[in-house]
Amino acid sequence: MSRIAGRPVVTPDAVGGGGPLIHIGPVVPEGILTDLVWFHSTNAGVDAVLGGSPWPDGVMLTRTVGRMGRRIAEYILAWMLEERQRTSLYRAQQEERRWERQDVDLVDGDLAVVFGAGRIGRAIAELLRSVGLRVVGVAATPRAIPEFDQVVGAPEAVTHVSRAEWLVSALPLTDDTRGYFGRSLLGAARGACFINVGRGETVRYDALGEALHGGRLRRAVLDVLPDEPPGHDDPVWDLPRTVITPHTAGVTADSDVAEDFRACWESLRRGERPPTVVDPGRGY
Amino acid sequence: MSRIAGRPVVTPDAVGGGGPLIHIGPVVPEGILTDLVWFHSTNAGVDAVLGGSPWPDGVMLTRTVGRMGRRIAEYILAWMLEERQRTSLYRAQQEERRWERQDVDLVDGDLAVVFGAGRIGRAIAELLRSVGLRVVGVAATPRAIPEFDQVVGAPEAVTHVSRAEWLVSALPLTDDTRGYFGRSLLGAARGACFINVGRGETVRYDALGEALHGGRLRRAVLDVLPDEPPGHDDPVWDLPRTVITPHTAGVTADSDVAEDFRACWESLRRGERPPTVVDPGRGY
Repeated sequence: MSRIAGRPVVTPDAVGGGGPLIHIGPVVPEGILTDLVWFHSTNAGVDAVLGGSPWPDGVMLTRTVGRMGRRIAEYILAWMLEERQRTSLYRAQQEERRWERQDVDLVDGDLAVVFGAGRIGRAIAELLRSVGLRVVGVAATPRAIPEFDQVVGAPEAVTHVSRAEWLVSALPLTDDTRGYFGRSLLGAARGACFINVGRGETVRYDALGEALHGGRLRRAVLDVLPDEPPGHDDPVWDLPRTVITPHTAGVTADSDVAEDFRACWESLRRGERPPTVVDPGRGY
Repeated sequence: MSRIAGRPVVTPDAVGGGGPLIHIGPVVPEGILTDLVWFHSTNAGVDAVLGGSPWPDGVMLTRTVGRMGRRIAEYILAWMLEERQRTSLYRAQQEERRWERQDVDLVDGDLAVVFGAGRIGRAIAELLRSVGLRVVGVAATPRAIPEFDQVVGAPEAVTHVSRAEWLVSALPLTDDTRGYFGRSLLGAARGACFINVGRGETVRYDALGEALHGGRLRRAVLDVLPDEPPGHDDPVWDLPRTVITPHTAGVTADSDVAEDFRACWESLRRGERPPTVVDPGRGY
């Protein structure tokens, strides 16, 4: 730990004495940064931790991923099947004691383009492929990743977007991804459903609205929004054919935090790089 | 064909002449049985075809399974995830512009007991295992079947029922399965959700009501009912925590019928037993 962080480490007992600190939480409390050697984020997305200011040298930043990838993957599959199997419509019919068949459809054989090929993107790809979808990943650095059928860079993504039934974003918020889903990308869709489990600010909402109104997107499922919670008058509520959920896809359980912190701790003890360490320059 | 059916076969051109018939349909039309050599059912369940009277010797009965197994499997997974991810609740909240987290849960690691280990039961098991469930099959003849973690007979099923999060029935309707889900089986559950994609008459509704009211079952999803469509006053509408869908899980597409008929036809030409031939004595 001292070797990696470049500062001596003290045990939690010594914290009261003002020595170097290890902190676990959602954000860095004010005033502790100068004494901090290691901050472990209880969330996967660390954009709120990194904020606008540069991360200080010598402070290690790790994050909690936990079973988040799996959780997010099941969330995505749930909303895919909610649409294809029309579960909400059937529940509404049942309210009226109506027993009337609707067209249902399979996800088997569909094409999904997943933006983001980190731990979460890979967990999504793994689950979707296991139920029969083909999955193309989009990554900053295209490379073969076993969970995907194929991984491409942003320039090649457009072709796949035009063929896909599902567009899934698991992108973190960075300078490169802010407003990433704009007119050129969403306008390339041909009837896809756009599912965002990454960050709300990666989307241009004017472009999203146009794509939905014009039919380029048949549907949107937004678990993340630029303003959370959205106000009663937030225009996102008025988007057509759009499902909005309260940032629930990747809820972190306490056990996830404990497990991932321990994994980092044990890596450090072995003198290895912790599995969920963040490169502050990259932002993930 | 003649060798298997024991009667000479004519081409469809000759049908007008009153010769031996091949018929494809949901039920056998009146008056053609004496000339029939092969009936291909457009459905998977042939209880309506076999009716009460004995099936005549020398008439081959085949059925359509098609992608039905896969369709039913996706239906089941959709309703599992609808519950765990609370999609219907979230849609209701959205109607009121409420952005409020609810507890969601994973299906990963759950135990499902699947009654029926034929083509449909196996397709269900395959999909559920691919998303991380453990699946115990219940079959008239327990044997190792690769799609299941384990296959047991009816007497051993009770132990598994008490541990399962999900009970799934894909049983056909036969003399042995009529009223199969009664007090002893449903009463053994400890909070499972019961999903019926088989036949409505396999369930004793007094026992189902008791298990739901008493909490032995946390939920029921019924795609099949004894009376379809159910009348407005049918008591099934009043079962608590029960989803009722209009026999939609295993809808057969025309392409399924054509493909399965062709597969039977080609097997016969090779002198082989058709893949979806029914043993009329067994009923499936």
